[in-house]
Amino acid sequence: MIYIGNKPVMSYVLAVVTQFNNGFDDVVIKARGRAISRAVDTAEVVRNKFLPNVEIKDIQIGTEAIEGEGGDKANVSSMEITMKTKA
Amino acid sequence: MIYIGNKPVMSYVLAVVTQFNNGFDDVVIKARGRAISRAVDTAEVVRNKFLPNVEIKDIQIGTEAIEGEGGDKANVSSMEITMKTKA
Repeated sequence: MIYIGNKPVMSYVLAVVTQFNNGFDDVVIKARGRAISRAVDTAEVVRNKFLPNVEIKDIQIGTEAIEGEGGDKANVSSMEITMKTKA
Repeated sequence: MIYIGNKPVMSYVLAVVTQFNNGFDDVVIKARGRAISRAVDTAEVVRNKFLPNVEIKDIQIGTEAIEGEGGDKANVSSMEITMKTKA
């Protein structure tokens, strides 16, 4: 599982590529809130520029409840992109 | 088809809800670049707050080439979320 944060996209691309190169058949990219667009960038760069034999297996979206420092609760969207090597 | 831009999420939520209320069985939400996270927010708010009988049918991601004013070319990630009424 690769969690997408605020680093440059290429950081996450290299993390995903490394997992596939270490023999993983599936790699899950997870993001919340504004990082979701970066997760999509990561998946697209991996399959278009680095690993043409890897494809999108599944994309799920959801909503998670988060609690702020003051106890405030808010909902944030989440996404999980599962990538896998082609059969 | 609802194109997600820079308006507040609720603008797009209302557009999607209106299409379902007008009898559409499927509504496609499309976004590029940073608007992708707003597209996910839109789909989540529609199904969690407004239309519990609507579900995610399919999510596709891709890459589009865009050309800037000076003729510069760049790639941007895109996403299409298809929502449908439950059978």
